Amino acid sequence: MGWHYAALEDRLARLGHLEGALAILNWDTAVCMPEAASAARGEQIATLKRLAHELLTADETGELLAGAEAESDLDPWQRANVREAQRRFRRARALEPALVEALARATNACEMTWREARRRSDFAMLRASLEEVVRLVREAARVTGAALGLEPYDALLDEHQPDLRDALVAPLLDRLAAALPPILEVAIEANRPFLTPRGPFPVDRQKKLAERLLSRLGFDFRMGRLDASAHPFCGGIPVDIRITSRWREDEVGAALMAVLHETGHALYEAGLPRRWLGQPVGEARGIVVHESQSLLLEMQICRSPAFLRFLAGELEAAFGPDPAWTSANLEALWHRVERGFIRVDADEVSYPLHVILRWRLEKAMLAGELAVADLPGAWAEGMRALLGVSPPDDARGCLQDIHWPVGAFGYFPCYTLGALLAAQLAAAARAQLPGLEQDIARGDIAPLLAWLRAQVHGRGSLPRFEELVREATGGPLAVEPFLEHLRARYLERAAAAA
Amino acid sequence: MGWHYAALEDRLARLGHLEGALAILNWDTAVCMPEAASAARGEQIATLKRLAHELLTADETGELLAGAEAESDLDPWQRANVREAQRRFRRARALEPALVEALARATNACEMTWREARRRSDFAMLRASLEEVVRLVREAARVTGAALGLEPYDALLDEHQPDLRDALVAPLLDRLAAALPPILEVAIEANRPFLTPRGPFPVDRQKKLAERLLSRLGFDFRMGRLDASAHPFCGGIPVDIRITSRWREDEVGAALMAVLHETGHALYEAGLPRRWLGQPVGEARGIVVHESQSLLLEMQICRSPAFLRFLAGELEAAFGPDPAWTSANLEALWHRVERGFIRVDADEVSYPLHVILRWRLEKAMLAGELAVADLPGAWAEGMRALLGVSPPDDARGCLQDIHWPVGAFGYFPCYTLGALLAAQLAAAARAQLPGLEQDIARGDIAPLLAWLRAQVHGRGSLPRFEELVREATGGPLAVEPFLEHLRARYLERAAAAA
Repeated sequence: MGWHYAALEDRLARLGHLEGALAILNWDTAVCMPEAASAARGEQIATLKRLAHELLTADETGELLAGAEAESDLDPWQRANVREAQRRFRRARALEPALVEALARATNACEMTWREARRRSDFAMLRASLEEVVRLVREAARVTGAALGLEPYDALLDEHQPDLRDALVAPLLDRLAAALPPILEVAIEANRPFLTPRGPFPVDRQKKLAERLLSRLGFDFRMGRLDASAHPFCGGIPVDIRITSRWREDEVGAALMAVLHETGHALYEAGLPRRWLGQPVGEARGIVVHESQSLLLEMQICRSPAFLRFLAGELEAAFGPDPAWTSANLEALWHRVERGFIRVDADEVSYPLHVILRWRLEKAMLAGELAVADLPGAWAEGMRALLGVSPPDDARGCLQDIHWPVGAFGYFPCYTLGALLAAQLAAAARAQLPGLEQDIARGDIAPLLAWLRAQVHGRGSLPRFEELVREATGGPLAVEPFLEHLRARYLERAAAAA
Repeated sequence: MGWHYAALEDRLARLGHLEGALAILNWDTAVCMPEAASAARGEQIATLKRLAHELLTADETGELLAGAEAESDLDPWQRANVREAQRRFRRARALEPALVEALARATNACEMTWREARRRSDFAMLRASLEEVVRLVREAARVTGAALGLEPYDALLDEHQPDLRDALVAPLLDRLAAALPPILEVAIEANRPFLTPRGPFPVDRQKKLAERLLSRLGFDFRMGRLDASAHPFCGGIPVDIRITSRWREDEVGAALMAVLHETGHALYEAGLPRRWLGQPVGEARGIVVHESQSLLLEMQICRSPAFLRFLAGELEAAFGPDPAWTSANLEALWHRVERGFIRVDADEVSYPLHVILRWRLEKAMLAGELAVADLPGAWAEGMRALLGVSPPDDARGCLQDIHWPVGAFGYFPCYTLGALLAAQLAAAARAQLPGLEQDIARGDIAPLLAWLRAQVHGRGSLPRFEELVREATGGPLAVEPFLEHLRARYLERAAAAA
C-alpha cells in the first residue's frame, strides 16, 4: 500500500466523521430540537454539508484517487474503497456549485410550500415550486449522466442504489404491474374479520416491549438507542444507531411494526464491517439493499405466522390478557389487504402498485412528457388503472409524499426492489437454514442474522449490487420469490377459506 | 460598512455554525450517546474542531480582519465584533498546529487515565500523564503570551475570561484567603439543626418541578430543554439551550439547586443580543461573567430567605406535606457551612478557599516551583492551611477535579471572581430595584431579569470585562459586596443565635 492510498483513507475518514456528525444533528433535529432553533440548525447543517462537499471535491482528492488507483498492491477491500470513493468524487464533481445551490434553495422552498399545500390539499399552491424542482433535477440528471456515461434517469437511480439501471427496473416493475392486480383482488376477498385489541396501551409499556424485541432480535443497546419522533427512521452511524418510532396510546400495531421495520435497517448498520467504519467501502450497499433488510425483518420474519405466535405471547405479557392476542387474530389484523390511497399505509401486496405509479409519473415528468400541471389528473388515472381507486383529494393523491418536493427522483423504485430482494434473500436463507421456522417461532433469529452478516451486512460495499444479489441468492434480482411469498401468504388462506 | 467587514461577518457566521454544531454534539455525548460510540464521537468532534480552527486561522481571515479594522464607518457593535474576532484569531494563530495536536492528544490520554486514577484513588497512576500536560500547557502559555504580549499565566486566564489578569486576581484572592477563615469558623458554629425532607422524591416529579421553576424564572422552553446527565451543565446555543441536571430518588436539594444554578447560565445565553447570534460580539462576555449569572441566580436569589419561603410552598405542592417544607428549615438545611474536602459540594463560604488552593498550586506547577510528583503533599498542606482539614485520600484530594487533566489551567479563579461579581451585581440591583425582595418572595424575577438584560445579557461582548463590571455596578470588581453578603447571611444568624 502506497502513500496515495493511505492519504486517501485519511481524507475519507475526515469526510466520514463530518457525515457522522451530520447524522447525529439530523437525529437531534427530529427528536430533541426545540422549535426556535430550526433556522440555526439549518445553517449548521448547511455549513457541515458545504465543508464535506469541499473536502470531497477538492483537486487533492482527485489526485489521491488517481494515485491510489495506480497502486498495485491494494487488497480487494482497499480497491473497492477506491472504487466507491471515485464514484462519489465523480458524482460530486459533476455538478457546478451554482446548480447545487440552486437545487438546495429550490428544494428547501418547495418542501416548505409542500407542507402547507398538503395541509390545505391544494396542488395549485405547489405547482410553480415543483416545476422549478423538476427543471433543476432534469438538468442535474442530464449533467451527471453525461459525466458518468449514464442516461439521465439512470444517473438518478444510481445516486440511491449504485449500479441500478432502469433496464433492470423496468422489466421487474412491468411484470409486477401485470401480476399484482389479480393477487390483490383475491387477497382482498380473503380478508378475515378480526378483534381489535383493546387499549389504552401506555406508551412507556409499548416502548419497553419494543426495546425487549429489539434486544431479542439481536440489536445491541450499547451501540444505539430508541426514541420517539414524528416519523419513524433509523439514523446515526454503525456504532451509534438511532432508531425512532411514534407511539399512540390507542393503537399498538403501527408503532410496533415501524420499530421492527427500522430494526432491520439497524441490524444492517450494526453488521457493517467494523474495520471499514467511516470509509466508503464500509457503508451499506445502497437503498435497495437497505430496504431489503428492513422488509426482510418486518415482512418476511415478523409478520410471518411463526413470529406472530411468539408475538402474541409478548403482547399479552406486556398489556395483559385480551382475546385479540392470538396468532390467528394477529394474522387477520396484520395480513389485511386494501385498495388504499396512501403509500405509507399500504400492505405489501398493493405497495408496489403505489411505487409503479410514481415511477411512471416521475419518468414522464423528467422526460417532459407529463407537465407538472397535469400531475393530479395523471395520478388519478394511474391509481384507477393500477389500484382501481382514485383519491378524493390531492392530499391523499399526488401531495402525499415528500420525495419529489425535496428533489428525490429515482428513489421510489428502491422500495419495491427492496421488497423483491427481501423475498429472494428469505427464500435463499430458508433453503440454507433448515431450522429457521422453529427459530422464528421462538423469536430467535440469531442463525438468520449470522447468515445475513455473512451474505450482506459484513460485506459492506465490497461487492457491486448485482454481485451481492447473485452471490447471496444464486441468481439475479427477480419477481418470482416475491410473488411466491405473496401467493403463500395471501392466496393460500383464500384457498383455505374457500 | 465595506466589503471586508461584510465578508468577515460571513466567515465568522460559518465558524459560529460549526461551533453551534459542536455544542449540540457535546450535549449529545453527555446526554444521549451510547457507550460504544465514544471513539467515533471523539473523531467527529476533533474533525469539526480542526475545520473550525482552519477556518479561523486561515490567512484570508487575517486579511479580512485587517481590512475591516481599516474601515471607518463601522458602528460600535461591528467594531467590537472585529475586536473580538481579532482576539480569537491572534490566539489561535499563536500556537503551531503540532503543539495544538500534542495538547489534544495529551489531554485526551490524561483525562482517560484520570478517570481510572480517581476511581482507584491512585495519584501515581496519573503522574506521568499529568506531567506531560503541565509541560505542554506551560509551553502553550509561554508561546501564546509572547504573541499577545502577556505573562504566561495571564495568557491562560485571558483564554477563559478575556482581559482578566493575575494582577487583578491576586489581590482579590489574597484578601479572601485572609477574610474567609474567621467567617467560616463562626458560620460553622452557627449551623442549626434541621429536618431532612422525607423521600422518596420520584424523579419525574422533581423534573416537573424543575421545569415549572425554570419557566417561572423566565426560561422559554421553545428555545431549550432540560435533561439528565452525569454532571449538570448548560450547553447548546442561545436559541437552543440545553440544560441538564442529575436526579436521585432519595434527595431533592442538590439536583434542584443544580438546575437553578444552570438556569442562571441559561438566562444569560437566552438574553444575548439576538441580532448578533453566532458572531463573536454576540457571545457571553467570558467565564467570570457567566459564572456570576449562575451564582447570582442560585446564591443571591434562590437561596435567599425570601425565595426559600416561595420554594417551601412549591416543594409542598410537588411532594406533599412534610414538616421540612418551611423556609426556616430550608435555611438551616441549605445555609449549612462545612469544612469539606470536595469543591463541587462546598458551600459558598468555603468554596473560594478550595479555589485559592488550586490557583496557588497551578501557578506553582506552571512556574516550575512545584513538581507534579509533589502535588498530593502540597494539596494536603494547603487544605490544612486554608480549610483546616486534609483529605483522607487523593480521590478526595488532588484527583477530584477534571480541570488539570484536560488542560484547563487558569480556569479555577473564574469561579470565585464570578461569586464576587454576583454579589456586586446583586447589591447594585437591590439599590436600583426597590421592590426586589417582594418580587423574589413571589418567585417573580422579571424586573431583575430586565435589569440584567440591560446591564449584562443584552450587551454580549460589546463592552470589555472591566467596562461591563464598572458600568453595571459603579466600580471595579471587589471583595466587599461578597463579604458583606456572607456576613449578612451567615454571621447575623450567629449573632441572632447568640
